[in-house]
Amino acid sequence: MSVIDVRSDTVTQPTLAMRQAMFDAVVGDDVYGDDPTVAELETLAARLLGKEAALFVPSGNFGNQLALYTHCRRGEEVILGDDCHIVWHESGGAAVIAGVQLRTIASADGVLDAAEVAKRIRVGEDIHWPRTGLICVENAHSNGRVIPLAAMQAVWQVAQAHAVPVHLDGARVFNAAAHLGCEVSAITACADSVMCCLSKGLAAPVGSILAGNADFIARARKNRKLLGGGLRQAGVLAAPGILALTEMAARLPEDHARARQLAQQLAALPGITLALDDVHINMVWFRLPGHLDSKVLMAALDAAGIKANPPEHGMMRLVTHWQIGDAEIARIVAVFAGLLA
Amino acid sequence: MSVIDVRSDTVTQPTLAMRQAMFDAVVGDDVYGDDPTVAELETLAARLLGKEAALFVPSGNFGNQLALYTHCRRGEEVILGDDCHIVWHESGGAAVIAGVQLRTIASADGVLDAAEVAKRIRVGEDIHWPRTGLICVENAHSNGRVIPLAAMQAVWQVAQAHAVPVHLDGARVFNAAAHLGCEVSAITACADSVMCCLSKGLAAPVGSILAGNADFIARARKNRKLLGGGLRQAGVLAAPGILALTEMAARLPEDHARARQLAQQLAALPGITLALDDVHINMVWFRLPGHLDSKVLMAALDAAGIKANPPEHGMMRLVTHWQIGDAEIARIVAVFAGLLA
Amino acid sequence: MSVIDVRSDTVTQPTLAMRQAMFDAVVGDDVYGDDPTVAELETLAARLLGKEAALFVPSGNFGNQLALYTHCRRGEEVILGDDCHIVWHESGGAAVIAGVQLRTIASADGVLDAAEVAKRIRVGEDIHWPRTGLICVENAHSNGRVIPLAAMQAVWQVAQAHAVPVHLDGARVFNAAAHLGCEVSAITACADSVMCCLSKGLAAPVGSILAGNADFIARARKNRKLLGGGLRQAGVLAAPGILALTEMAARLPEDHARARQLAQQLAALPGITLALDDVHINMVWFRLPGHLDSKVLMAALDAAGIKANPPEHGMMRLVTHWQIGDAEIARIVAVFAGLLA
Amino acid sequence: MSVIDVRSDTVTQPTLAMRQAMFDAVVGDDVYGDDPTVAELETLAARLLGKEAALFVPSGNFGNQLALYTHCRRGEEVILGDDCHIVWHESGGAAVIAGVQLRTIASADGVLDAAEVAKRIRVGEDIHWPRTGLICVENAHSNGRVIPLAAMQAVWQVAQAHAVPVHLDGARVFNAAAHLGCEVSAITACADSVMCCLSKGLAAPVGSILAGNADFIARARKNRKLLGGGLRQAGVLAAPGILALTEMAARLPEDHARARQLAQQLAALPGITLALDDVHINMVWFRLPGHLDSKVLMAALDAAGIKANPPEHGMMRLVTHWQIGDAEIARIVAVFAGLLA
Repeated sequence: MSVIDVRSDTVTQPTLAMRQAMFDAVVGDDVYGDDPTVAELETLAARLLGKEAALFVPSGNFGNQLALYTHCRRGEEVILGDDCHIVWHESGGAAVIAGVQLRTIASADGVLDAAEVAKRIRVGEDIHWPRTGLICVENAHSNGRVIPLAAMQAVWQVAQAHAVPVHLDGARVFNAAAHLGCEVSAITACADSVMCCLSKGLAAPVGSILAGNADFIARARKNRKLLGGGLRQAGVLAAPGILALTEMAARLPEDHARARQLAQQLAALPGITLALDDVHINMVWFRLPGHLDSKVLMAALDAAGIKANPPEHGMMRLVTHWQIGDAEIARIVAVFAGLLA
Repeated sequence: MSVIDVRSDTVTQPTLAMRQAMFDAVVGDDVYGDDPTVAELETLAARLLGKEAALFVPSGNFGNQLALYTHCRRGEEVILGDDCHIVWHESGGAAVIAGVQLRTIASADGVLDAAEVAKRIRVGEDIHWPRTGLICVENAHSNGRVIPLAAMQAVWQVAQAHAVPVHLDGARVFNAAAHLGCEVSAITACADSVMCCLSKGLAAPVGSILAGNADFIARARKNRKLLGGGLRQAGVLAAPGILALTEMAARLPEDHARARQLAQQLAALPGITLALDDVHINMVWFRLPGHLDSKVLMAALDAAGIKANPPEHGMMRLVTHWQIGDAEIARIVAVFAGLLA
Repeated sequence: MSVIDVRSDTVTQPTLAMRQAMFDAVVGDDVYGDDPTVAELETLAARLLGKEAALFVPSGNFGNQLALYTHCRRGEEVILGDDCHIVWHESGGAAVIAGVQLRTIASADGVLDAAEVAKRIRVGEDIHWPRTGLICVENAHSNGRVIPLAAMQAVWQVAQAHAVPVHLDGARVFNAAAHLGCEVSAITACADSVMCCLSKGLAAPVGSILAGNADFIARARKNRKLLGGGLRQAGVLAAPGILALTEMAARLPEDHARARQLAQQLAALPGITLALDDVHINMVWFRLPGHLDSKVLMAALDAAGIKANPPEHGMMRLVTHWQIGDAEIARIVAVFAGLLA
Repeated sequence: MSVIDVRSDTVTQPTLAMRQAMFDAVVGDDVYGDDPTVAELETLAARLLGKEAALFVPSGNFGNQLALYTHCRRGEEVILGDDCHIVWHESGGAAVIAGVQLRTIASADGVLDAAEVAKRIRVGEDIHWPRTGLICVENAHSNGRVIPLAAMQAVWQVAQAHAVPVHLDGARVFNAAAHLGCEVSAITACADSVMCCLSKGLAAPVGSILAGNADFIARARKNRKLLGGGLRQAGVLAAPGILALTEMAARLPEDHARARQLAQQLAALPGITLALDDVHINMVWFRLPGHLDSKVLMAALDAAGIKANPPEHGMMRLVTHWQIGDAEIARIVAVFAGLLA
């Protein structure tokens, strides 16, 4: 029995085509600027993300922190939602690497209110004030929701009006575009820089992209070296990254469709609370009935060869990806149905 | 005509007694630990603030930043209100000096909701998480309001339950105690460390106090040197500081009474909006009528020898202190009455 | 005509076996600790390096900076040679990431004088002093010389006597061991932690190892995440890394032999100054005669399909590696002979 | 019997005139820019130091660190002597506050070799390199020696040639000028910025000056606030500071003369080794004979009411200042004569 892993889309294995691409990759020393496959990936990524230039980085966390470090001088202030990944899940790195002061604001399911952002921007000079150095947005949000284009544009307009740059944590921006039915560049147009992951739903084994204008990326390239992210024959990672941005990005709607299919079947089970309207991408969140013992559930999933993160405070998250097909959805639903129906 | 300065209580001149105390001060090299007047001030301050030890520092900003630096390791997270002085008016120093990540939460007029604080504390270990290193509270708040003891205690209990230290920005903690009618130590009991200013309403020319337990202050003393705050014959500042904590602290109720008196007279003028219940200490906030031209007002004040900060978005703040007596209140009210009555 | 690249050993292409290993790698999400190939590499590396534990990191620069960050608290002092890689070629990262103060001391060809190190260690407590947090050594030195074991041990004894940890920048520690004819662990025994590169002469496309005791590596693992070095399916890099530490490490003596062979033939040419005793590993340094025009030389090399870094102030460096065999040596020598003989 | 304190010139008490000046000082809130006495001091200091502008800071350590922070971006490299005060006695602050990488070079008694400085400057761009952000020199050196003008000029020319700024730690620059018999501005002409202390030999109780061009000082003023060095009624410190720069600076030759007198008399005692040529300013260094028990000496000094730092490795330092007259010199010499003659 094959294992089904729905803990996250970070667990995705590289596809066979990706393994072949690694095997065949034409590589060079990328610190010397000699790796043609990295160059190809960066050119492709810049085009897809609608930016002048792009840079391969080891991880999404690295790309976000590099963006903060490159946009801001130390001591500047960064405005962002208090539930975003940079605040919650990047180990406090913004205070260590960029040395910036975070101004966290309450967000409604990841959507920043442009007026609240505007209120935090420091207008004018005061010896007591840090300069507002950056606004960060996230789309798709790490809670699985997609921020509407109108909300992105509202923050972008505020930022433009005050000449404050915007960084987009677009770890899953291709999922966001798939949900919105738009080009990725329609989303990234609302930001000066964007980080997107080649791993996660796009299945590359390692790596992310930071994109922006040419000057920003030139400075980020130097800073990437300082932070230890200059790799040598990185083409072995860029080769599957190219497939991530082409073949794998194109099939994300499948993952979204299966997430909705899974959500509908779970929602139909007695005791499960699930808001179908909140299933935007490949993540399904739901509340378990109070009478279902968490240990019994985890044991049943384990017995069925299903890896899932245990529920927290009764809430559970399942994530679809290219290795989750119809048969896997059926096996997952069967476990819940067996316990609840 | 003498000048009346109601811009802030930071403008207070040292009293004659303070000048005499500077003249007479017995001093030594405090970096060698040789200054008896500094030692006397630190002992007195520790006793009044109910802490084991205290340290003289050059400013309130210095004391707050030193507290963050001494409590936290770099990259840790600090939970605090988004309208507090450390966030708003300390130039982003927390990101530079301590290198900590701020988690700002919405506060109601400076009062932190203990449940909101509790939600931000990181419980358990996760490789993605910074450690919660500190909670900061402020009392009196720099907006002029005093935080009720019950609210302080609620946050303190949450902090204790999670073994997270609390720092109190008590720049005006003696004003807070005067308003609450309690000992200062009843307020500082809700914090592991406290910074209080000897200047502002207490009228010393220069200096603040950081107090806490003996180990904390020993480490802060070393860190103070690193940050350039080790002074030589600091007794010349400590001597007026002793008067600040004794004579001047005892007379703060006068400033509060005059602020209320000023508030009542302004509130009686047509067009002025002023919440008397919000006048807790020596600050009077009020909204001017829309028809009053700000330039006309400032010219009238200037002509009457009154220094005030111009209104922002129609809101104005006047601050009383030991140099503002009944005659000064009358002169101030007369200007507003002349324009509005 | 195939290209011969002797600019550095960082330009090494992965071997066919490495490409096959990437293709076949069994991988998992290493942030979850699920990648068996990474685990295998880390276990192997820890054993070879004689340490309790090891950690895969994206680059040598990353590994060194992570070591500084994990060993030291901010503001501590690090003693190291003024010609070492951390000082010269890591972009000032020690001041940004670890926030430590470097105490650089003159070194004789990379060899630190233990007595000079001892003089810089801060003994006792003084409010004016930073704590000595770390001593860094480098072997093989990035100038191509190997530090004798006795010199390593002398520094180690000084460090032990003062309870100061030692970090070894062992980017080419396998080359050092090959030259000394000892086990790598005989060198790493003189350090608490060691970074070694899987790329460079060992030919893996990407990645390095940081090794040390179990507690140190556990803290480094958490810090690696903060610095953005937590990778997902890193097994695709660990698989060639395993071959680097086994097959490729075993064949380093070949590179050293060819470097000596190249050195001898160059030294025999009229006008070239080359100290054969200084050829320790795979690097050949020599001085060109003043009459040889640098542009003519570079053009001749280029015409022969040879990539080399241009001479600096008359000094030139050529580096051998697994893609440089006898035929390549002959072609290189022929170019110089053609110009000089 | 009055106490004689020759531990350092940091122990100097303010003069009676200084105490009167504090009493009389016209002060204002210097954070608002309202203190006329501070303004007077800053104008005077700028003129004497030959710079466009000057800033009052709480201490010499603060002034040096503020200079590093204002000159450099984080991660830049600072070249300086390995025995200078910033390296030895500022608690590692350069790594914490400015976040710069120190490149320490061996100095001969505090004199930097301009050629050695030149070798450390990074010329051109390389992704592996930090930018050279600053060169620091110190005069008089904290070891009591004065750097000749020619040596200062040689470093200055190297710096100018590479467009690297120079900061002068001139804690005792007035002593240096007194020794060289030149204007202070002849020394400070070899630096872009200079810090000089108002305390030490100049006897002000608290405070130092940072001077430089107008733009530099404007940025330093903002940074001083961030670092907690913005003081309120700082005029009480500026008033004695003005006397420090005028009356007290003028009498420094007296301290130097008495130091030479003390040195000559000590040198005449059997067993004492003392290089008279090394007595440049107010510091007398000498080696005690091996047979003299350090505890016996310290007890004898103590019995005679003399405070001195105990010898380290047989070397002893005595420092003269305005409170050390001929009678005090005689009393000190008598103790040594009693033990040795």
